[in-house]
Amino acid sequence: MFNARTDLVVEAREMHLENKVDEIQGTETETEDFDYGISVTRVTISDEQGAKVLGKPKGKYITLELPEKGQVRQGAYEEACRVCALELCRLLDGKDCETVLVAGLGNRGITADSVGPKCVDSVLVTRHLLEYMPDEIDNRLRAVCAVAPGVLGITGIETSEIVKGLVDRIKPSVVIAVDALCSRSMERVNSTIQMSDTGIAPGAGIDNKRMALDEANLGIPVIAIGVPTVIDAATIAGDAIDMLVEDMKKHSGENSLLFRMLNTIADEDKYSVIKEVFEPAHGAFVVTPKEIDMLVGTVSDIIANGINIAIHEGITLGDIDRYK
Amino acid sequence: MFNARTDLVVEAREMHLENKVDEIQGTETETEDFDYGISVTRVTISDEQGAKVLGKPKGKYITLELPEKGQVRQGAYEEACRVCALELCRLLDGKDCETVLVAGLGNRGITADSVGPKCVDSVLVTRHLLEYMPDEIDNRLRAVCAVAPGVLGITGIETSEIVKGLVDRIKPSVVIAVDALCSRSMERVNSTIQMSDTGIAPGAGIDNKRMALDEANLGIPVIAIGVPTVIDAATIAGDAIDMLVEDMKKHSGENSLLFRMLNTIADEDKYSVIKEVFEPAHGAFVVTPKEIDMLVGTVSDIIANGINIAIHEGITLGDIDRYK
Amino acid sequence: MFNARTDLVVEAREMHLENKVDEIQGTETETEDFDYGISVTRVTISDEQGAKVLGKPKGKYITLELPEKGQVRQGAYEEACRVCALELCRLLDGKDCETVLVAGLGNRGITADSVGPKCVDSVLVTRHLLEYMPDEIDNRLRAVCAVAPGVLGITGIETSEIVKGLVDRIKPSVVIAVDALCSRSMERVNSTIQMSDTGIAPGAGIDNKRMALDEANLGIPVIAIGVPTVIDAATIAGDAIDMLVEDMKKHSGENSLLFRMLNTIADEDKYSVIKEVFEPAHGAFVVTPKEIDMLVGTVSDIIANGINIAIHEGITLGDIDRYK
Amino acid sequence: MFNARTDLVVEAREMHLENKVDEIQGTETETEDFDYGISVTRVTISDEQGAKVLGKPKGKYITLELPEKGQVRQGAYEEACRVCALELCRLLDGKDCETVLVAGLGNRGITADSVGPKCVDSVLVTRHLLEYMPDEIDNRLRAVCAVAPGVLGITGIETSEIVKGLVDRIKPSVVIAVDALCSRSMERVNSTIQMSDTGIAPGAGIDNKRMALDEANLGIPVIAIGVPTVIDAATIAGDAIDMLVEDMKKHSGENSLLFRMLNTIADEDKYSVIKEVFEPAHGAFVVTPKEIDMLVGTVSDIIANGINIAIHEGITLGDIDRYK
Repeated sequence: MFNARTDLVVEAREMHLENKVDEIQGTETETEDFDYGISVTRVTISDEQGAKVLGKPKGKYITLELPEKGQVRQGAYEEACRVCALELCRLLDGKDCETVLVAGLGNRGITADSVGPKCVDSVLVTRHLLEYMPDEIDNRLRAVCAVAPGVLGITGIETSEIVKGLVDRIKPSVVIAVDALCSRSMERVNSTIQMSDTGIAPGAGIDNKRMALDEANLGIPVIAIGVPTVIDAATIAGDAIDMLVEDMKKHSGENSLLFRMLNTIADEDKYSVIKEVFEPAHGAFVVTPKEIDMLVGTVSDIIANGINIAIHEGITLGDIDRYK
Repeated sequence: MFNARTDLVVEAREMHLENKVDEIQGTETETEDFDYGISVTRVTISDEQGAKVLGKPKGKYITLELPEKGQVRQGAYEEACRVCALELCRLLDGKDCETVLVAGLGNRGITADSVGPKCVDSVLVTRHLLEYMPDEIDNRLRAVCAVAPGVLGITGIETSEIVKGLVDRIKPSVVIAVDALCSRSMERVNSTIQMSDTGIAPGAGIDNKRMALDEANLGIPVIAIGVPTVIDAATIAGDAIDMLVEDMKKHSGENSLLFRMLNTIADEDKYSVIKEVFEPAHGAFVVTPKEIDMLVGTVSDIIANGINIAIHEGITLGDIDRYK
Repeated sequence: MFNARTDLVVEAREMHLENKVDEIQGTETETEDFDYGISVTRVTISDEQGAKVLGKPKGKYITLELPEKGQVRQGAYEEACRVCALELCRLLDGKDCETVLVAGLGNRGITADSVGPKCVDSVLVTRHLLEYMPDEIDNRLRAVCAVAPGVLGITGIETSEIVKGLVDRIKPSVVIAVDALCSRSMERVNSTIQMSDTGIAPGAGIDNKRMALDEANLGIPVIAIGVPTVIDAATIAGDAIDMLVEDMKKHSGENSLLFRMLNTIADEDKYSVIKEVFEPAHGAFVVTPKEIDMLVGTVSDIIANGINIAIHEGITLGDIDRYK
Repeated sequence: MFNARTDLVVEAREMHLENKVDEIQGTETETEDFDYGISVTRVTISDEQGAKVLGKPKGKYITLELPEKGQVRQGAYEEACRVCALELCRLLDGKDCETVLVAGLGNRGITADSVGPKCVDSVLVTRHLLEYMPDEIDNRLRAVCAVAPGVLGITGIETSEIVKGLVDRIKPSVVIAVDALCSRSMERVNSTIQMSDTGIAPGAGIDNKRMALDEANLGIPVIAIGVPTVIDAATIAGDAIDMLVEDMKKHSGENSLLFRMLNTIADEDKYSVIKEVFEPAHGAFVVTPKEIDMLVGTVSDIIANGINIAIHEGITLGDIDRYK
């Protein structure tokens, strides 16, 4: 099968399982359904073999899938915020959350890359209040600060360098990094939230970020939260080719010459065809839903509320609005 | 060949000529090169046969191609404005330009659809000045007014109904309608400007606009200016399939069974495969350059300046900035 | 007293009553308190004398005052939407609401003038759905369409001409015009909503709109909804002078020479001083809260939801979100 | 005289000189006129006495005044960029400019506070290019990086802490900090640029920034560039009172009782009156030009181009556009 680009562990797993029968060694998977059609898949990659097969670092990955793309009603919206908070609590469990730094990665000026900065705008920031007026502040609030460091092309500085400088200066106990991701399927775009305790690896997202934002580099735990907002245009082309080949095989009979020939079409051939389609602009084109400007706002708010509820004990969606 | 969707006459022509040897009957084409690598193609569709073959109404179509996508330097930018004005003058030649209504079509809130509204923001509007303070105004200025009527999904009213109501009320002598288009090739996205004297046909652009904005409906000439900002995601898939088939044919020998079988793959088969790739969201996904937010701003300004220079006699790029 | 500029009838009334003891002839006033500290004042100007004294046309004026400026909690937000709908229903009572045109007046690009266009973005638009897919639509929905016609300086066309052209074309049964207003007190900025059945008079709001948007001009009822977003800077200066004079009088004794001299300071003197403060830019400066960008979003949403609930029978805040 | 709030040294000086005849001790002032009506005032505060009188730290202050507020024509725009670069070179003269960090302070979401972030968007960033592809880069370019750190209320972190963390991490040789300022006169709003080599003191600008961004804190030179975008509403009130008192004195004769009484009105009385005008929202209201959204864009671009031309040797306005 054509090896489409994806940042989602659930998709990497599905792509692998399409070909193999049994579960991937070194991984565990469980799913849970919530109200309003929201579902959660929790994948744990527990050893190096699982990591290699799925192409993702060892750790816990939680994927939240929203029911109706871009049509989230009030009830589903509130449930999504609640589930997002619940699952984030699983990843934060046992970690010191005294001071949380939320880093909204990506380019605010490019809609498909603006989930992180938009999320920062809606996170309930309290660190300065606790510092300057501790007596007036609800004692259920923890210290949260939030930055949108921008992207390399705008700042001239690696995102991870900016975050590292900040972490060294203000010494938070944990970083939550929010970023736009790349998916391989249209259904998941803007309706999926992936959370993990592995941080963000270089090259993930739709922008190149060379140095990893993870515990190894920052010295404190890094929770990554990502939303697929685009599909690599090459993935669409690859899907089309795969389907045509399947279609031709189905119609030619298993013993026919054509069937055997089609079976010999190697992935390399497909790659070279796709490369030709996208030359000379390979990598510069992405597939997005037309209404992306609106969708990005909703999912950013769900993540921001999820963070707000998860971090501040005893706080609910209703409470949070008073600080907005 | 897969019949990819395009709003550009130059592409419709190219797609037709790929298969046929001779020029299309009922059409005339000429090209001209300008400085900074800017080129212009002028296609005239002079009879119904040409119109049928190209799938576009009879009339003059001028296509301006910019040299470097998204990297327009100052010199090229100014030349592009100048050429845009020159070619627009060809289409306006002989028409009454006493009062010009510029209509910026599309949805301001969706980047890929915002060329029209953005252009309206930069057009030099003078109608009210000429009406309320004629003595203070440079007598080389003509009366220009400009509206961004919005899209059906936001207003609940057909774009052409809004423009028709306005035309009936304020009685301009010509309408210039600016809109986002759909291209079939990645090189043309955001670097091509198509102008025509045919108005805008229903269903063009990335939004459905059922009633035509043309002379038949409005009672005055309608110049259409369009910029392709997206490619239908299905086009990418179709291109990939075509290339794979070509590749397989090349490797199998002209007399082989496979070659003959591949030749029998009808366009319908390809359509059905592509439809499957995009179900259930067919039509909702588009391919855009990642940096579209920036590109749309530049091309909107070129068109606005082109209009400004073309309409107001003796006005140059330098003069215009003083009114901005 | 210095005759500060205001578009609010409640303020015109207060300014008048400061000096006179009894209620203004030809007007009736009632107030009602709602939950969350929301209060409503209903002023009816029933004859020409009342109209002259208050400087506003005859008609019903309803003013909704929100409790905490810029800090609207979820509960208060929902109650504000509900009260806004309730009071709008009073003004619409007995009118044909078969097809409603919402006109969001003002300049989208200037924050203090963007209440109208922002409101249009959140109004539930249904006219096209009822026209093109009547069977799929909830039969409690009425036909609503919405436009943001822009301002004279951007379009070159009087706002009321654009709306008139549209009304003649699509024949709605009522127009709801939403606009930014000018207040004379800082407490009311962005926390007050004024509704009336008089339409919008020329020169109201922070932009000049010469032709009135009212039933006389459009031929159908026009409901005006306005939010004060600015105070004329001259008002602030006038207030300061008044207070200083009061202060000096208080300290000088009623029979003193100074007291008598201060009493002789005519309004014309104050005007000429204030004019001097603001020359040469008189009228171009406005006073706004620093955080206006955020406040305008909240109050626009309250109005949009108020309209949605008022127009569509049986629809509540919860239902509306599903169409957003 | 009422001690109006200003961040501009030229205004502090003017306010002082209104009362005193001779030049302020410990300061030197020179002015220079440029084409298109642009003028430059250079004030050097050379000792503590001058610093105390003007309420600003010792150092060089350069003020660039643009001719026509908000109506900068192309020629004046280019000259303003050139003069901005020239004067910035004076302040940078003798300093190590190997790596420059531009910090755009302020809140991107509040128009009056967005000069800094907008400027960052237009600065030519090169540090990453020089690091990753040094051979392809014009050798006249120096390493420039740029961040918009946000404001305390959004991030929960002092702006200066974020910048300090970054300076410690990436070790630039100089910081250029761009911020919105507060003026005391309407003519200067959005048409004045103040540059100094003193950094940014706590409490300057329209937001509270407690820790200074200066060489003492960062360990490297800090150039501050500021643009007044607002006037404190209390300043307007104070001006009105001063003018009324002057007016009354003029009409009452120097030996009259009133004249003597008016002379006894202490500044404290004025303060208490003004405080009353603005209670309970003192400090939260600002006076801005109506068209501020447009003005802020132009002045941000002038500063960005000034920085670009000043930093990169041999680069002109024409060259810069190719990198935009």
